[in-house]
Amino acid sequence: MHTETGHMILSLLIIFAAGKFMGEVFERLRQPAVIGELLAGVIIGPGVLALVKPGEVAETVATMGVVVLMFAVGLETRPSELFKVGRTATIVATLGVIAPMALGFAAGSVMGFTRPEALFIGTALVATSVGITARVLADRGLITTRTARIVLAAAVIDDVLGMLVLSGVTGSVRGGVDVWHIGLIFLQAAVFLGFEVFIAPKIVNRHAHWLDKLHIPNAPLVVSIIVMLAMAALSEWIGLAGIVGAFFAGMMFAETSDRFELEARVKPLYEWLVPYFFVVTGMKVQPALFAKPAVLLPGLALVTLAVLTKVVGCGLGALGGGVREALAVGVGMVPRGEVGLIVASVGLSMGIVSPTVYAIVVLVVVVTTVIVPPVLPPLFMLAQGDAPVELGRRRSAKAEEAA
Amino acid sequence: MHTETGHMILSLLIIFAAGKFMGEVFERLRQPAVIGELLAGVIIGPGVLALVKPGEVAETVATMGVVVLMFAVGLETRPSELFKVGRTATIVATLGVIAPMALGFAAGSVMGFTRPEALFIGTALVATSVGITARVLADRGLITTRTARIVLAAAVIDDVLGMLVLSGVTGSVRGGVDVWHIGLIFLQAAVFLGFEVFIAPKIVNRHAHWLDKLHIPNAPLVVSIIVMLAMAALSEWIGLAGIVGAFFAGMMFAETSDRFELEARVKPLYEWLVPYFFVVTGMKVQPALFAKPAVLLPGLALVTLAVLTKVVGCGLGALGGGVREALAVGVGMVPRGEVGLIVASVGLSMGIVSPTVYAIVVLVVVVTTVIVPPVLPPLFMLAQGDAPVELGRRRSAKAEEAA
Repeated sequence: MHTETGHMILSLLIIFAAGKFMGEVFERLRQPAVIGELLAGVIIGPGVLALVKPGEVAETVATMGVVVLMFAVGLETRPSELFKVGRTATIVATLGVIAPMALGFAAGSVMGFTRPEALFIGTALVATSVGITARVLADRGLITTRTARIVLAAAVIDDVLGMLVLSGVTGSVRGGVDVWHIGLIFLQAAVFLGFEVFIAPKIVNRHAHWLDKLHIPNAPLVVSIIVMLAMAALSEWIGLAGIVGAFFAGMMFAETSDRFELEARVKPLYEWLVPYFFVVTGMKVQPALFAKPAVLLPGLALVTLAVLTKVVGCGLGALGGGVREALAVGVGMVPRGEVGLIVASVGLSMGIVSPTVYAIVVLVVVVTTVIVPPVLPPLFMLAQGDAPVELGRRRSAKAEEAA
Repeated sequence: MHTETGHMILSLLIIFAAGKFMGEVFERLRQPAVIGELLAGVIIGPGVLALVKPGEVAETVATMGVVVLMFAVGLETRPSELFKVGRTATIVATLGVIAPMALGFAAGSVMGFTRPEALFIGTALVATSVGITARVLADRGLITTRTARIVLAAAVIDDVLGMLVLSGVTGSVRGGVDVWHIGLIFLQAAVFLGFEVFIAPKIVNRHAHWLDKLHIPNAPLVVSIIVMLAMAALSEWIGLAGIVGAFFAGMMFAETSDRFELEARVKPLYEWLVPYFFVVTGMKVQPALFAKPAVLLPGLALVTLAVLTKVVGCGLGALGGGVREALAVGVGMVPRGEVGLIVASVGLSMGIVSPTVYAIVVLVVVVTTVIVPPVLPPLFMLAQGDAPVELGRRRSAKAEEAA
């Protein structure tokens, strides 16, 4: 390839084609396509074939992909449906933060790591990465179930709590916790969430008819994309994950979505862009890194802990809906992601966390991400038997009525 | 913004929101939205407000945009319709290469530039950039007219001829034209074009039913995106513009497009991604650069020459369809783009072209791109009166029959 543009297009091609090919293979094995995409990433990434250079080209499209994913999930989530599970989700999130933090710290100490290192290990185990769960459930048509709503709402609260824990831990390691600063962060996040859940959807519902007055074609899609990017940027600016903002942006349009056919219009964006996120995530896995015993053994121990603390912690919070729902919620909250890596990077850059501990955290992130997709659909199907209200079915019944 | 992801999302937001806002303003002024997008780019770019850093993030999405644009245009172009205008397009392209090359070289020599510099000026004036014309005509529903087909086919041939001229000129400046090398380039391009026009669409028509057997959702869209990226990459690899390959990829699916609803599915990709190309193009304009008399005066003279040589050269080739069609074709071929800049960069990196001449070429590219959109729709509407067959209307009439 002679030109920069040519290289760019070739990277876009290899990532997409490899992801979709492996996705097709896994669909045929009756497994979620997303596992195929992750695996495709490992194979084409620098760890194995090195067909694609990681870098800004890949990261840009991956970011667009995960933002679109969470926007699409938001489109299927009405605020009222989130309220219904609000109390449960808050308990789920809180227990799901305390358990991994406390036990991660304890385990780190027992394994002989320094106190600050053990603190960072605990913190890295806190933040659920909801992308993979959302993707699997959306692909299987299970994202509108009550159980899925609990996971989504809990993941948002989990993100806020995780941010507070990270501020607290970095502060305490640096020598002093700045309570005012943490209070300010919490206030910002609370105002943002409150606005997004209670006010923003009403503004959209009331003023959506303005969209018909715009001269540009396809104005509802265009404006909703602008809102999606704006909320994601705002969310990052506050210190939350961009995907939290994208999810809320989708929710803002959930009630007007049918009228503007937003779901159908977002689907092609989803099909093209979302796989980049998962393939690029896979590209970050370098198998050779995990081969050392100093990484592998404590890593696997912490993986077990990471799984158990969320399954039990979050599960306890969701017991009100029955054991099956509790299990589904717990497992849905298991995957860790970017935030865990960011925590570990912060520790690394502060000189507190050793490269070995960093590699261990990467291992935890990778394994918790890969083991969840296969078991998620059966667990969520089972949970539907227990759940008192099945919103997804109810909603489509409503749509049939209206038709 | 604290994180890299945050910056990335913010850039994506500003480019899109600014482009769509200015697009809306220009639509209300009854002008093509694309002028608004170019202007938005100038305003947010480093030349004026510097809100967005140019770089790989912006370039990635811009490249995706222009590839999607030409793919969408290809979807509306059946190979048979391209054949009908093949002879005319070949003459249009050939005269439209000879005229600017010869007169550009002559003008450069008269202005006192060195012989190699004058050669590079002529070469930079050769290559039509069909993106802007295609966008304006597609937005106005004029892309399926006979006149538009002539421009599209001529632009493809123009791209091949331009590549050959560039090889010849670089060779002659370096000390010797390698006829075998140029012959090989020509052969590669001819085989590629022949395959794309005569064979590839037939392969797709015959085997498209395989797509129904795939397990991944939305398989036709997914596979056509893979083909689009593959053809664009192949095209770049051969030395042609990536958009030529994307256009052919679209054409491969033109006959199966209705069955798979590809046009409707590509539209959301178009709405989101295409504006990035034009806004990012606008970002490359730095008004301060053109303020110097040493750039402005010869620049404006060459702009005049660039317009006249295409209008008259290409127009002469299209006279068979009447004066109005000839004028529409000529004006449609006026915009220059990336290729002109690449030619000038090659000259710059070879130490043959001075920064002043480079700035002049940039000026020619910018002005020819900006002046065409407003006049294009009326000219193409007028040409429809002369044109023997109006394919667009005919085709939609056919669709109505079928319904």
